[in-house]
Amino acid sequence: MPPAETLTPERILEVTEDVLRRYGPAKATVVDVARALGVSHGSVYRHFRTKTALREAVTQRWLDRTSTRLQAVVTEDGPAPERLSRWVRELFTAKQHKADDDPELFATYMTLVGESGGVVEQHVADLTGQLAAIILDGIEQGAFAPGDSATLARAVFDATGRFHDPCYAAEWSRPGIEEALGAVVELVLRGLRS
Amino acid sequence: MPPAETLTPERILEVTEDVLRRYGPAKATVVDVARALGVSHGSVYRHFRTKTALREAVTQRWLDRTSTRLQAVVTEDGPAPERLSRWVRELFTAKQHKADDDPELFATYMTLVGESGGVVEQHVADLTGQLAAIILDGIEQGAFAPGDSATLARAVFDATGRFHDPCYAAEWSRPGIEEALGAVVELVLRGLRS
Repeated sequence: MPPAETLTPERILEVTEDVLRRYGPAKATVVDVARALGVSHGSVYRHFRTKTALREAVTQRWLDRTSTRLQAVVTEDGPAPERLSRWVRELFTAKQHKADDDPELFATYMTLVGESGGVVEQHVADLTGQLAAIILDGIEQGAFAPGDSATLARAVFDATGRFHDPCYAAEWSRPGIEEALGAVVELVLRGLRS
Repeated sequence: MPPAETLTPERILEVTEDVLRRYGPAKATVVDVARALGVSHGSVYRHFRTKTALREAVTQRWLDRTSTRLQAVVTEDGPAPERLSRWVRELFTAKQHKADDDPELFATYMTLVGESGGVVEQHVADLTGQLAAIILDGIEQGAFAPGDSATLARAVFDATGRFHDPCYAAEWSRPGIEEALGAVVELVLRGLRS
């Protein structure tokens, strides 16, 4: 096991995720994390001052994995309508995988997300900010009608909630969900264009 | 108390709702319903053959209250875009009231809804059918672009989920929700028009 000096926040968060997966969010403690790292719990607290701070950081890291992945679609060149469509579809695919590939970890993070309202708000702000950037590009390209990109971004985010909001996770593997997503994206794109 | 002969299905369902409110969905039994009606449980079973049938019927009655109220917006004359906007807003208001005015009954019905998938499917089919009728009117009036009204109706229903799906009930009283609804309705109407 590595000595305490090599402890990085990222290493602590990695192990915290493992501990959460193993013990569940109700039972996992900072002492469990420290033990799994082979360090004292004081070493963990040096990086994350409270258990709440640690749980929020690991939740944010989990949510950031999605927004980081989508950032590429925001910054690349190309027609905004096509990028907006791809952004929504990639968000859906990312969430689908999170829910399907490791359902227990997904349930764990759903509990953590419920505890840390601020982290979720930041995540939604990150995502709608990405959407606003694509929409602004589209307005500048003349592909979308002029409008307030922040308001439009929030409307697009809300209108596609069925395909990224965890409360719909049970529906993401149902037949017909891709067609339903396609119909909403088309309607939204037509709305932005007109 | 009225004698068994005057028992109507509607009277049984009325009392069932009272019993569910009083005892909660986990504890309420057909015997409780019969007792509240002053009849034998056999009299109740003559109208609803199982406890499940009774619970499904009372759930459907609760959901139908919303769709019946909205039907007026479907059948009246007038420009389809304005009616579609009003239909979505009235659906939101109806759901908001159900959640706010009697939170315990709302929670009770959320449990029942979770038990009876078929009843919910029928409710969603009723609502998207109403939307499809308005959209078809709009296409005939030349206000909406030609398209498959059923597919478009489902897309509009999905796109407005934040404002009628019970999983968002906690957000329905937050500041800004009316503006968020307005932005989605405007985007959707623009999409239908184009």
